[in-house]
Amino acid sequence: MRKVGIIGLGHVGETIAYTLVSKGTVDQLVLIDVDDKRALAQQYDLVNTITSLNTSTKIIIQDYAALKNADVIITSFRSTESKQNGNLTDDFASSVTIAQQVGEKIKSSEFNGVIINVNDPNEASTAILQKTVSIPQNQVFGIGTCVETQQIKSVIAEQLQVSPHNVSGFVYGERGESNFIAWSTFSVSGRSMNDIHDDYQLNFEKLEMTAKQQAWSSFSGRGYSNFSVATCTVKLIQAVLSDERLVMPVAVYHPGIETYISYPAIIGLSGIRSLMVAKLTDLEQGQLITASNFIKQKIESLSN
Amino acid sequence: MRKVGIIGLGHVGETIAYTLVSKGTVDQLVLIDVDDKRALAQQYDLVNTITSLNTSTKIIIQDYAALKNADVIITSFRSTESKQNGNLTDDFASSVTIAQQVGEKIKSSEFNGVIINVNDPNEASTAILQKTVSIPQNQVFGIGTCVETQQIKSVIAEQLQVSPHNVSGFVYGERGESNFIAWSTFSVSGRSMNDIHDDYQLNFEKLEMTAKQQAWSSFSGRGYSNFSVATCTVKLIQAVLSDERLVMPVAVYHPGIETYISYPAIIGLSGIRSLMVAKLTDLEQGQLITASNFIKQKIESLSN
Amino acid sequence: MRKVGIIGLGHVGETIAYTLVSKGTVDQLVLIDVDDKRALAQQYDLVNTITSLNTSTKIIIQDYAALKNADVIITSFRSTESKQNGNLTDDFASSVTIAQQVGEKIKSSEFNGVIINVNDPNEASTAILQKTVSIPQNQVFGIGTCVETQQIKSVIAEQLQVSPHNVSGFVYGERGESNFIAWSTFSVSGRSMNDIHDDYQLNFEKLEMTAKQQAWSSFSGRGYSNFSVATCTVKLIQAVLSDERLVMPVAVYHPGIETYISYPAIIGLSGIRSLMVAKLTDLEQGQLITASNFIKQKIESLSN
Amino acid sequence: MRKVGIIGLGHVGETIAYTLVSKGTVDQLVLIDVDDKRALAQQYDLVNTITSLNTSTKIIIQDYAALKNADVIITSFRSTESKQNGNLTDDFASSVTIAQQVGEKIKSSEFNGVIINVNDPNEASTAILQKTVSIPQNQVFGIGTCVETQQIKSVIAEQLQVSPHNVSGFVYGERGESNFIAWSTFSVSGRSMNDIHDDYQLNFEKLEMTAKQQAWSSFSGRGYSNFSVATCTVKLIQAVLSDERLVMPVAVYHPGIETYISYPAIIGLSGIRSLMVAKLTDLEQGQLITASNFIKQKIESLSN
Repeated sequence: MRKVGIIGLGHVGETIAYTLVSKGTVDQLVLIDVDDKRALAQQYDLVNTITSLNTSTKIIIQDYAALKNADVIITSFRSTESKQNGNLTDDFASSVTIAQQVGEKIKSSEFNGVIINVNDPNEASTAILQKTVSIPQNQVFGIGTCVETQQIKSVIAEQLQVSPHNVSGFVYGERGESNFIAWSTFSVSGRSMNDIHDDYQLNFEKLEMTAKQQAWSSFSGRGYSNFSVATCTVKLIQAVLSDERLVMPVAVYHPGIETYISYPAIIGLSGIRSLMVAKLTDLEQGQLITASNFIKQKIESLSN
Repeated sequence: MRKVGIIGLGHVGETIAYTLVSKGTVDQLVLIDVDDKRALAQQYDLVNTITSLNTSTKIIIQDYAALKNADVIITSFRSTESKQNGNLTDDFASSVTIAQQVGEKIKSSEFNGVIINVNDPNEASTAILQKTVSIPQNQVFGIGTCVETQQIKSVIAEQLQVSPHNVSGFVYGERGESNFIAWSTFSVSGRSMNDIHDDYQLNFEKLEMTAKQQAWSSFSGRGYSNFSVATCTVKLIQAVLSDERLVMPVAVYHPGIETYISYPAIIGLSGIRSLMVAKLTDLEQGQLITASNFIKQKIESLSN
Repeated sequence: MRKVGIIGLGHVGETIAYTLVSKGTVDQLVLIDVDDKRALAQQYDLVNTITSLNTSTKIIIQDYAALKNADVIITSFRSTESKQNGNLTDDFASSVTIAQQVGEKIKSSEFNGVIINVNDPNEASTAILQKTVSIPQNQVFGIGTCVETQQIKSVIAEQLQVSPHNVSGFVYGERGESNFIAWSTFSVSGRSMNDIHDDYQLNFEKLEMTAKQQAWSSFSGRGYSNFSVATCTVKLIQAVLSDERLVMPVAVYHPGIETYISYPAIIGLSGIRSLMVAKLTDLEQGQLITASNFIKQKIESLSN
Repeated sequence: MRKVGIIGLGHVGETIAYTLVSKGTVDQLVLIDVDDKRALAQQYDLVNTITSLNTSTKIIIQDYAALKNADVIITSFRSTESKQNGNLTDDFASSVTIAQQVGEKIKSSEFNGVIINVNDPNEASTAILQKTVSIPQNQVFGIGTCVETQQIKSVIAEQLQVSPHNVSGFVYGERGESNFIAWSTFSVSGRSMNDIHDDYQLNFEKLEMTAKQQAWSSFSGRGYSNFSVATCTVKLIQAVLSDERLVMPVAVYHPGIETYISYPAIIGLSGIRSLMVAKLTDLEQGQLITASNFIKQKIESLSN
């Protein structure tokens, strides 16, 4: 039996729930939100959805105790959603406060599976969540730069007129802010970016700019990018459930850098199996350190 | 190649788009909304979604001309969405005005496929849309009482402790308002409701009440029930694309009653192949006439 | 985590394995066959299949101990497959001998999940398997008349020009031999067969004959009907994993009749939750007794 | 509407048909085989399969005229299947004779879509098929070294303990015989094989040997590797239907080398959009020429 919990039913949380139900990925789904009416509304909406499918998922709501034997918990609080015009620092502080409160409840449930954190600031709130829940670091990670990685893959694919499924590589650093495209890790259909650079007259800066503009357009037009975030998250859930050993750029604890940071990691049944260490260029290595400093500061300021 | 257009990208329209992309159901998707930024945001969000899938869909936005060779168009305007506290009559009038404006544009695109209307008031706006676009009545239908039918199936299944996939039967009449559960058409795993009534000590009125309460909770907790509506709609789209001949309670033109009304119909490549005429009880037949009168009045008042 | 074992990798067993892998239904799959080379071939073929998918399944072969914590075991021995020209009595005896041998090994693995038996004679070999493995009767059932039920549904759907998904009802009795279509349980889109009989000028005998001819053509043209059998079986597996409470006509122990027989039952996490008792007509009730007598004789003769 | 034809219903052809039906990928499927009874058996088996699904596909058999408006035709003759102990040269000659006969019939149907050839010798028979059908070279390609590429990806993934979905790169040359792993095109999670060679102490020769042994075990244990071949082929079909621009190592006409050869190509609606030219090493370039010579000889000897 596959059992997943989702805490926080905003646009992202609810889309993750819908995707899991719609694809028949899980057998039991525990939905929790601060708003009882919202949780109940989603339960009924999903139950009626199942009636039109040929798979089945049991929907449980507002029950922390039901998380005890869950395989995976998704934390997707609504505090930082749709607040593009608000004060981000306040939102982050609020997100962290919620992370601590929810973390205590998860801890009380005696949950011992894998937590995938979707909240922002992703790396910092993942760190705080892990500390609060007190399960091993490998069992708590964030979606990190998964979406940023999708975005630059889409842009490269469009530029080269190939499928994004043929593009590989990773964005490192920090979700949303101080991240960087590690160009040395990118390749398209068996050719490194440096190799194809001249053939296709690629302008890395322009590609990066395009990805950032699209990310902004994608977010600002609706206040959230729930579809791509949910699809990434479901991919991570599946990697855990099936012990897939999928390498994804998630927010993980990096022992060398001594902080949570977005970094390619091998994901399986127990969460993070290990990091996928690449030989970054000196420039990229510097960008990684810069990002780690930003994250450390954020964790420190938010932990107080 | 499978090509679908969606006009109106509110919570329902966007969830239909996401579901079609997520399941790889269609090859081309044309998205149109009054808000350019919203359409663009969804295009990027869906393109980034595809990067994480192993299927592919081409996303085209804001282009009525691209609808010409589409197989299906979904109309899901945002006018009647999330306005539970507003004046419903105004919303409906607004919905009809939009239906006429959009209908003209669809007509100009020389589209000759199937239109599935998700707007409210469903039967009335489907009638007006069909008149404006001027394609045969069998090619224009609404989702009708598909969701109401799901809801009562879910309630019956829960009561009998069986899968909703084992419950069959239809709600007739009018989406959202003057509809009725045609109990004589319901059966569970090979037994008619009348047959199992005594064994399970069923109270039809109570079941109906529960369904209505759940429908209200489902809607009022978020202001929309996008998941069940989208899943129903995708099922209808698939029935058209695959010429499935699936019987669903949709808003169709009934020649005997001389109006669009929610009634079980056989759905295939050209839309409605025929109605699925059942021998309703006298009571149910009366309820059908009552519903048809409500719908006729609504069409008349809204057409002026 | 979802874990399924398949014992016997003939055309049916291997197609079940492929379907589970192809749809990403399970996380771990244990494959066992008398032929080591065949099991190894399938493991590699499936591992290479997974490389082209975006889901993952761990494939374990030839390891009875790995069945201990499986959710479901499928028994699909090859003894009765592709032997249409052979001596059926010998095949059945052979099937039972294998059932006993395999049953002992399952018992030794301390497996305590649900066994779904696909072998023929289905009801008799399910009974013998249950006795050998010594787990409760609700945890051991056979595919029964699931495929026969599909066949008559397909024929009815074709005759009425509607989707087979709109047809409900069950074939009862004995898989392959003394079964009967319980016409009183059949309905199409909310109308009982008796109700629509006159409208569509249905000839029940002719429909039954057509279904039998198609069943024979389907089997004899290749020596097996692996696709429909596998699809039914996967549906049963999903019903168990998701605790769906799906009603299907499977080979279950009927306490009133005191034998395993194909009968609609509610399927969930612990296997059979309960029978779905219908008010059969006197004729059908008689046919049920006849079938039960055949099955009892078969069990007795094969048990010695 | 998506329409696909399959000519030749051996283990591979039938598994492709089943996969397309099971996943609801196509709306119409045209099945053709030299054995009428086999085609009929599969039609009924698939129709009964659909009854258990919630998607629908129309199955048409033995009708070349129905191919006229198909999007894709798969040629998967049974002549070279399960004949590992026979005389391969005879089998190939037989395969080519059939390719010519079938090609004439396809030509007569006025089909103008994309042909994907699964027969062996793959490159040679693809060349002959293209010549016979007389549609442009970009519209006719073979599965080439797709399966060989899967195999080495699986082996690398197992060795590095990561998901095969994180491995990219291509096998070039000739399906089944004179092919080679173009190591310079391979990378794992953003790192080239040469880069990770030392870290993981990789032995390329040993990896290649393991892949070949597994390929042999996979084939010889059953006489066919239908699951991985079918899954690859379905991926190619989807790439055409959705105009995905997916890069896969298929058997395409290479204008520089002047022959059909397995080479990475961008696959979309019109078949091959273009080749994906990589800077192979001198060694690999030499291996490519060697393979091309083998293929040219085969085409010449078989064309006479």
